[in-house]
Amino acid sequence: MARVDALIIQRMQSDVPVIPLLAEHLVAAGGKRLRPLMTVAAARATGGPVEAAVSLAAAVEFIHTATLLHDDVVDGSELRRGKVAAHLIWGAASSVLVGDFLFARAFELMVETDNMRALGVLARAAGVIAEGEVLQLTRAHDITLDRDTYLKIIQAKTAELFAAAAESGALGAGADDAQVTALRDYGMALGVAFQLADDALDYGGASETLGKNAGDDFREAKVTLPLLIAMERTGAAEAAFWARTIDRRDQSEDDFRRARELIVASGALTATLDEAGAWADRAKAALGVLPDTDWRRALASLADFAVSRAA
Amino acid sequence: MARVDALIIQRMQSDVPVIPLLAEHLVAAGGKRLRPLMTVAAARATGGPVEAAVSLAAAVEFIHTATLLHDDVVDGSELRRGKVAAHLIWGAASSVLVGDFLFARAFELMVETDNMRALGVLARAAGVIAEGEVLQLTRAHDITLDRDTYLKIIQAKTAELFAAAAESGALGAGADDAQVTALRDYGMALGVAFQLADDALDYGGASETLGKNAGDDFREAKVTLPLLIAMERTGAAEAAFWARTIDRRDQSEDDFRRARELIVASGALTATLDEAGAWADRAKAALGVLPDTDWRRALASLADFAVSRAA
Repeated sequence: MARVDALIIQRMQSDVPVIPLLAEHLVAAGGKRLRPLMTVAAARATGGPVEAAVSLAAAVEFIHTATLLHDDVVDGSELRRGKVAAHLIWGAASSVLVGDFLFARAFELMVETDNMRALGVLARAAGVIAEGEVLQLTRAHDITLDRDTYLKIIQAKTAELFAAAAESGALGAGADDAQVTALRDYGMALGVAFQLADDALDYGGASETLGKNAGDDFREAKVTLPLLIAMERTGAAEAAFWARTIDRRDQSEDDFRRARELIVASGALTATLDEAGAWADRAKAALGVLPDTDWRRALASLADFAVSRAA
Repeated sequence: MARVDALIIQRMQSDVPVIPLLAEHLVAAGGKRLRPLMTVAAARATGGPVEAAVSLAAAVEFIHTATLLHDDVVDGSELRRGKVAAHLIWGAASSVLVGDFLFARAFELMVETDNMRALGVLARAAGVIAEGEVLQLTRAHDITLDRDTYLKIIQAKTAELFAAAAESGALGAGADDAQVTALRDYGMALGVAFQLADDALDYGGASETLGKNAGDDFREAKVTLPLLIAMERTGAAEAAFWARTIDRRDQSEDDFRRARELIVASGALTATLDEAGAWADRAKAALGVLPDTDWRRALASLADFAVSRAA
């Protein structure tokens, strides 16, 4: 991962001054580097060489960073990784263009690996992510959203990149088709588990204390699984509350507390965490075809970690 | 080109409703399809097969369209190809995300050609274009801009895609290195000529009547070559006029007429068109290594056309 980090820093450089400044703002802010870690760990877990995976991992992180830059412009977000969002410092225009730059750099890195199949997987993922973002944009505040469409959105906008990260790592390591498919399935299931845990965390997760970004989804009137389940279970009794706070986005100070109470009392939070746990189990089960190594165990732990953050 | 058009229409489809609507708005509006035409004509001019060039040409047009979508958001432009800009109909968020989608689709098309060198050329071009856009964003209203930096900006933001379009077409056709280099040089020179002619057209070109978009650059206080030369030549006498209208962007109704008069009277317009002509000649000279065919003559005509629009 140190090599991946070095490559990320090296390839975000440009003679145009604002580009490295803006990119470093986001990349240096850290983040968990979960996606590039999956690319490298997937390559290791197949027992193949890791050289291509290092470049592919940096490319995966660039795609992720580009997506974050564009997302924050699209959502008008004010914070990212605990820092002021880049578009509020350098302007939306710079964020859009530096996102494009990082996206292009991602493909340059992939070209260097000379692995067309891995490149195809990540190109396809980039398209699916954009489709997922557009779908979310048009449906995210829709209280008639059904569970299947919600799952489709998070698979596209979040899980697809996890799936492509693991799959491309395996391809870069020259793994056989069964391993490649297994690692793709693993990444997809882990990505869904990760997003569902995030959704639960936004309502405090299973803990009594709220995390620093808790309440963001509710205040942005985003329909996520805890909310969907709570709306189903509280039925007509609370229909007016959800219609006002989510559909009409008319919220007062105390509404998040009440929403959280309804989500906990209706069992929607527990149900979301159970669902996240089931996807994590699915991720671990997919690893069965890989040889039993420390790397396979590391991937399994990553699936547990994705959910345990919220438990 | 009919095959390229069919491929463009086919690959902009998506299950997410707003994507094809927004993409079709821009693609169906036409535009000259100059860049994909160069890709196909370059392949033909080398005498090689044209199959890969058809896919690469569609990819080139997708990169161009994605860039236009993001540009219009960045610049807040109101019109594109004579129609209301997409971001004013579907919102800036959709324009950013559909741009990302088209960018991803471009790379998927390239992957299908299985030509890693062509893919590398277009990936690199996408990065250079984004760098050029950022550079323009930070320097476009700067009246101290020098000619070298201006040339660097238009080479990056405009000419690089023409160069990559022609180069990738040659690579897709299996051309030898001398032909590939020649076609890259041709595209780069043609791209500069094209942009300089555009700059001149924005002040009416050599004709007495103004085109429909004339005055856009001036009203956006964009420093282009006609303006740069006019500022040099009118010196201290008009420094206050340029400082007010461009540096401070404080313009009144009559200022464009006066700017145009100064640009014509100082010979800046003629000098810009001469410069464009010199780049077109350079483009045609680069074609010398290619066999003397109808396709080579078509490419030479394209270079003349790039400039004659403004003459």
